[in-house]
Parts: sequence; structure tokens; C-alpha cells
Amino acid sequence: MAKEITPREENYSQWYNDIVKKAGLAEHSAVRGCMVIKPYGFAIWEKMQAQLDKMFKDTGHMNAYFPLFIPKSFLSKEADHVEGFAKECAVVTHYRLKQSDDGKGVVVDPEARLEEELIVRPTSETIIWNTYRDWITSYRDLPLLINQWANVVRWEMRTRLFLRTAEFLWQEGHTAHATKEEAMQEALRMQDVYAEFAEEYMAMPVIKGAKSANERFAGAVETYAIEALMQDGKALQAGTSHFLGQNFARAFDVKYVSESNQEEYVWATSWGVSTRLMGGLIMTHSDDDGLVLPPRLAPIQVVIVPIPKPDPELNAIGENIKKELESRGVSVKIDLDDKKRPGFKFAEYEMKGVPVRIGIGKRDLEKGVVEVARRDTKEKMNINLEECTGFVSRLLDEIQENLMQKALDFREAHTTVVDTWDQFEKVLDEKGGFLLAHWDGSTETEVRIKELTKATIRCIPHEQEGEEGQCILTGKPSKGRVLFARAY
Amino acid sequence: MAKEITPREENYSQWYNDIVKKAGLAEHSAVRGCMVIKPYGFAIWEKMQAQLDKMFKDTGHMNAYFPLFIPKSFLSKEADHVEGFAKECAVVTHYRLKQSDDGKGVVVDPEARLEEELIVRPTSETIIWNTYRDWITSYRDLPLLINQWANVVRWEMRTRLFLRTAEFLWQEGHTAHATKEEAMQEALRMQDVYAEFAEEYMAMPVIKGAKSANERFAGAVETYAIEALMQDGKALQAGTSHFLGQNFARAFDVKYVSESNQEEYVWATSWGVSTRLMGGLIMTHSDDDGLVLPPRLAPIQVVIVPIPKPDPELNAIGENIKKELESRGVSVKIDLDDKKRPGFKFAEYEMKGVPVRIGIGKRDLEKGVVEVARRDTKEKMNINLEECTGFVSRLLDEIQENLMQKALDFREAHTTVVDTWDQFEKVLDEKGGFLLAHWDGSTETEVRIKELTKATIRCIPHEQEGEEGQCILTGKPSKGRVLFARAY
Repeated sequence: MAKEITPREENYSQWYNDIVKKAGLAEHSAVRGCMVIKPYGFAIWEKMQAQLDKMFKDTGHMNAYFPLFIPKSFLSKEADHVEGFAKECAVVTHYRLKQSDDGKGVVVDPEARLEEELIVRPTSETIIWNTYRDWITSYRDLPLLINQWANVVRWEMRTRLFLRTAEFLWQEGHTAHATKEEAMQEALRMQDVYAEFAEEYMAMPVIKGAKSANERFAGAVETYAIEALMQDGKALQAGTSHFLGQNFARAFDVKYVSESNQEEYVWATSWGVSTRLMGGLIMTHSDDDGLVLPPRLAPIQVVIVPIPKPDPELNAIGENIKKELESRGVSVKIDLDDKKRPGFKFAEYEMKGVPVRIGIGKRDLEKGVVEVARRDTKEKMNINLEECTGFVSRLLDEIQENLMQKALDFREAHTTVVDTWDQFEKVLDEKGGFLLAHWDGSTETEVRIKELTKATIRCIPHEQEGEEGQCILTGKPSKGRVLFARAY
Repeated sequence: MAKEITPREENYSQWYNDIVKKAGLAEHSAVRGCMVIKPYGFAIWEKMQAQLDKMFKDTGHMNAYFPLFIPKSFLSKEADHVEGFAKECAVVTHYRLKQSDDGKGVVVDPEARLEEELIVRPTSETIIWNTYRDWITSYRDLPLLINQWANVVRWEMRTRLFLRTAEFLWQEGHTAHATKEEAMQEALRMQDVYAEFAEEYMAMPVIKGAKSANERFAGAVETYAIEALMQDGKALQAGTSHFLGQNFARAFDVKYVSESNQEEYVWATSWGVSTRLMGGLIMTHSDDDGLVLPPRLAPIQVVIVPIPKPDPELNAIGENIKKELESRGVSVKIDLDDKKRPGFKFAEYEMKGVPVRIGIGKRDLEKGVVEVARRDTKEKMNINLEECTGFVSRLLDEIQENLMQKALDFREAHTTVVDTWDQFEKVLDEKGGFLLAHWDGSTETEVRIKELTKATIRCIPHEQEGEEGQCILTGKPSKGRVLFARAY
């Protein structure tokens, strides 16, 4: 199986597609730009969802559900928002089909035209803030901390599985606050939650920062992002959290009466991560033999394979190890298929990124050992049968840490401080990765740099030396370095 | 608060709407026929989802995700299916908006018309079977046991929150099998899973049976349903499981090579339950003071209220009880709001259907007791502080059982065996409920009965005496009684 994957060196983009396909994660559907998330891919997404959902609830949020459709006029109510979102989107114009005259199919019934077209939500600020108008009257109703798990549609012309699809799954948090400070804190808190999730669960290090004005969410006052670095040296925006000021409250007339009996507009945030995280997860850790998964997000953490094939004695030992590992909270599969040879199975579980494989072989057992193989380093070890479960459960933690460390090392090796335009272009082309460079703060310069190099400002990092300097393109003064990269 | 609810006797339909609204479960949105599921309502739905999802996984199913959109032509491929579903549905015809000429809003860009219109899925058999064609080649790929949690849209003209909305949330299982017998078993197994969920978790007794030909799912060979009885004597179809034969396999050309090397069409099932269950849950147990929830689906199982108001001593005792109950797996809220009086709080938690309330009062404590009140019977008991947690955790089981028993008793009292047409009409009008009557088996008679009385055949119960008789309308021979009712 492994041979079927295009090596990264040869064609990174094809390597990615091969992994998504051969590991059974997702595929293109009959509907342009929409994907099918296959069971194994969805199982990983479910683990992400479960953890994120827990983190949202631990920070006081509740889930709710708002309509799939947005009346067209809603999009126009917030001036910047309409610019950003009322473009490529799916528009529902009719509500009925009827038999075609030739009786061979169905056609849209021209009689059933909607008075006002409905847009399939590209994001839900408008419909949600239209609803919040009725939910919020007093400071006692605040803060309102709500999250929604949903599908959204943005009619993308060029799509890539998980990274950019017309329909994708995501969560969108929408919160309402009495004060600017509280809303700002919330936006930053959720950026922290995302960063913690990315690093502790995905083992994907991220840089936290603010977006430049040009890269802000349409309708936001500030957009905070977490930015990760992929193995091909391109950046991936993995999550965003927006401080929306009072923009949506004004657009939808959402006011509250304060403790001092003043009527004021409500302050807002929104924040989201999507199935795009799956793309980040794949590209951060996987290798030329297939998917590599951090144990905390692996649907199967350990697979047990009897060697050369299942038999009652080997199976019984396997079942025993399985039971013991499960009692430690480890998810285990024992592969008792007797039609496939061990070598085939090994390749298959490597392809699927199962973190640990335990081979139970007759000959090894005579020596009292089993073979434990880790997916991340490919290392194989003979472990005493009695010590196996303890060893494996510690090994899972070690793999989780190792993947994070490896990704951190990669990022460090691919983050370059550059001071001149020549250097900037050279590093971008020859090495890629993150570039820390001075910028004069203007959108004009940012756009020009993008035109010249395809590199964008990924973020203005929160962690700043505060070192002053000169813009790499214009030479104008800069107050600190920003993070550039070519990006997905 | 309780006074704001219209009593059932006065106006059952208004009573239902009042509960949905005042308990904070859902509301109508700005989009015709689409609802907003509010946080408390969604928390109940999440509990349902979690349990159903576990039951699906325990029976070998995996989740996946398929596109929101279905190409129009797909709907026409299965002859009966198109009849049933290619009617009232949301049709996407365009993929772009642009600024209107007056600059004041957005309009649909006429240039961006889709070549083939897309239908927002009303159900996903067609897109899924189109996908299965590539997933299934050999008997080794079978059975394929997949479930999807999704939103679907059916353009209903008359909508009621949870019971009938244009957009609703549901799960749809879609399985593929090598043999007819296996597919039939699966359809029946999932009907059993639904019945178990309804009775063990929702405390809502259901009758399992087969639908008459006239009431079958469009494209199914057999439709199995679970039917529940609401307090107003109307039936609610709470879940359906379909044996689809080879209809979709033929329509989408899905074949497999059998063990004996024959190419054969695949056998199929599909099955679903939706947010409609929320309507059933509300209408089965609630009373004129608000929602009544079975403990197993209550987001808050126990609420603790210090009386007359929070103070350090009372709060500490409350926190202690909370901790002990939580360690027994009970979800507990302690209400430390000092701006609301106990009476107000009591009414609020009654409205929200919290199964058990513990009042911690200064005077009671002097006697070493707390007040435990159960929502279902309104009974109040003084319980020794030391015995409180054990008592409450047993009480939750008792409430669960009592709700089920009460609903069973109600159903028994409202199930009438009728033998003549006069009796049929009289019972329907005066008593309502389920009517067990003979029917000649023809669609013609079934339709006529519906025209005359609005009663439909809810199902042909699996549990049959096999008693022969004569059709109540036509007098023609009948092989067994079927279940009639007016229904939601």
C-alpha cells in the first residue's frame, strides 16, 4: 500500500491527496466542491469535536442551533460583512420542483419563486444577531455565550479536500457582552482555547497574533488567529477569533439597559474552527508511508496483530492486552482477519496512522515478549508480555510529546528573521516557512508584497520584542516584526 | 411564571407552544418555517444524540458526512422516491450575489446560474447510494453500516416547532448488505434500537409495527415505525426504519461480487429519528406547570436552592450535596442567585422540568432535614441530610420509572378495540387515542377512512393475535387488527 503514496519531495500536493484518499479520510462528491467525509476521517473529526466541545463548555458556553438559511437582505445590514460574504454563495430562489413536461424528470416550478432569496449560511453573524435582539434587553442577560456546530457553504472555485471546500463543517461561537473589555477578553480567551487545543491535542504548534486590517474578518474590529506551519513551508490559518465591536449590534439594533439604566449597544465576538483542522493535522505529522496521528486524536490508538495469523492462543493473549489497555482508557483494535497477511496489515495501519502496533508472534512468545512498533519513529521494540500494557500506555504519551517536539523543531528551523528585501525573496523561494520581518503598517505595502511574492502577513504576533526597524519593502519605520509566509 | 401557560384542557396546541417558549426550548426564526433551537432545548437534544450515537456504535455503525446538496437529476433516478421528495424543497439555482445597481443592497448575479440546480437534501438516499457505487465492489465490503447526523430541509407549508419544520436536525442511517435477509434484519434491529431509546430514555412507550403501503417511505419496500400516543389522544410517528430492497442499488447501479463470484445488486436500509422527538418528549410528560423531563434526558437532574436565600452555611451544605451527587453521576445545579426569591426559582425550575429540587432551609436544618421535591408528582418530602444523596439518586430512577408507567397507563386507557364503523367514529371523536380495528388491506379503504375521519393507519403492529375479522368500513375480510389514530 505505502508504495502508492507519492513522496513529499516529488509532489507535496499529490502526497496530500494520496494520504487523504488512501487513509480513507475523505473524497470529492458528485457535487462540485463538496466533500464526503469518510468514516475514518469522520472518527478523527469526532474526537476533535468532543474535545473542543468540552473546552467550550468548560469556559461557560452552551450550544444552540440557528437556521441554515439567511434572508438576502440580512447580509447587507453590516457594510463590511456584505463586502466579504455576499459574493460566492449558494442562493435558494425556489421552493418546489415539478414533473417535467416530457415526464422524464423534474424541473424547478417557476410558480414557486421565493419573494426574497435565501442564502445558505457562509457564517451566521447576521441571523444570530437578528435573533439576539429579542434575547437581550438588560445587563442581566449578558454575557450570552453561545456556540453552534454547523455546516456552512462558501462557493469556492478552487477546492482541496478539508483545506478549502464549498461546504465544510465547523463550529461558530457568537457571544454578546456588556463592555468592550469583556468582549475583547472573550475573543482572546477563545484564541487561547484554540491554541491549547492545537498544541495539546493536535500536537501542532501555533503562533498567536492579530491579523492586519487587510486580513481581518469582514465586520470585525480585530481578528485574532492561530497560525501553523506545514511541512512544505506554507502557513495554515487554523482558527480565528474576532472582536466585532458593536458593529453587528448596531446593524441589528441590539441594545441592553445597563446597571446604571443607560441604553447601550451590545459588544460582540465570534470565533470558529472547521474541518480545515483535519488538513492541518494531516500536513503537520504525516510521512511518505501515510498518515501519522497524535495519540490523543487517534480513533484507534493501538492495534494488535497476531503473527503469522490469528489462532486461539494468540487471540486470547491479544484480547487480554486489549482489555487491560481499555481499562486504562486506551482505544484498541485487535485484527483477527485471517485472510490478510501481517505485512499487509502493518502497511494498512501505518497508512491509517495508528500510533502503536503490537505484534503477538508465536516465536516471540516463547521468549516471553511481544513486538511493539511506534508509528512516529518506526522504531520496533521487544517488550516483556507482563510489562506491555504499562509500557504502551506510557509510549502513547511519549509519541504525543515527540510529535509536538518534532513539529516545534521544524517550525524553529523554518522561521527566519530577515532584514532586507533580497533576503526576504530569497528565503521565501529557497526555504519557505515563517519570515519575521519589519513592515510599515500600511495595507498598501502589504498588498504590494503579496503581489510581488504571494506572501501574506499571517499575523502580528502577540509575543513581541517591540524592536523597532524599517519596512523591508519601503524602508519606512516599523514598530515591530510581523510574521510573513505563503499560506494555504 | 406557571400562570402564563395555557392549560391543556383549554387549548392543547397553545399549551404546547407555551411550554416550548417559556421553558426556553425553541422559537421561530426570521426564516419562514425554520426554528432556532435555544440552549436549554439544544442541551436536551444533545443528551438524546449522545445516547442514540452510543447505541448506533454499539450495533456496529460508524458516522460519516455527505454533501448538503443533491443534484436535481439524482432525485429522478428512483421512481417512487422522486414522487415523494421532489416536491416541496429548497432549490439552489445561483452561486453568486452582486451589488445592486443602486448600491443599496445585493442582488442575485444572473451570470452565476448553475448548469444543474442543486436541492438542499430532504433525505440523503440518492447522494449516498451514488457514493456507495464506488465503495462497494465485493462481498468483503459488506455490510456497510453508516450513520450521518445532519440538517435536512423539506418545505413544509404549516410548521410547528419541533414537530414539523422546514429545516430540522436528524440522523439518517444508510446501510448496504449482501442479502435480503440481512437487510431486513438490520431494518428491524434499528426499529428495536429506536423503541429501546424511546422507552428506556424518553420514558415514552411505543408500538412497533409496519406501515401500510400507502404510508411507506418513498422508495421503500417496507417501512417500520415506532408510534407513540400524546396526551391529547393523537399519535406521533417517532421514528422509521426502512427496508429499501434493491431499489436504490438498481437506481444507482451498485453491485457487488458475491462469494460465489456472481454479480448482484446490493440490499439496503435507511432509518432516522429527528428533532421531532423533542415534540414527543414534551407532549408525553409535561403538565400545566411546564415541562416534565425524564431524568435520563434532563440536562439538570437536580437543582439545589438555599432558602430563603444563599448564605455561606447553606451554600456550603449545598455544594457538599452537589459534589456527592456528582460523584454518583448526577448532574446538579446550585442556584446562588440572591436577587430572585425561592418561589420564583421553584416556578422556573418547574417550568424547565428539572426532575428533583432540593430546598436547603435554615429551619429545616435545625431538624437535620432538607426538603426534596419531585417534579413529576409534585410531592415534597423532608429527608435527613445524611441520607439525602442516596435518597435522591434512587428517586431519579423512581421518577424515570413512574413517568414510563404513567405514559403506559395513559396509553392503555386510550387504546380501544372497536368493531363497528359507528363505534370507530364515536371513539375517535369522544376519546381519541389508538383504535385497534379490522381493515381489508386495501389502500382505497385506508384513504377513504382518512377522508371521512382524518384517522390514518399508524402501523400494522408486529405483536398480533392474528385474529381474523371484517373491515370496519367495507366489511371485507381482514387478517388482523391494525392501529388507527389521528396523528401529528
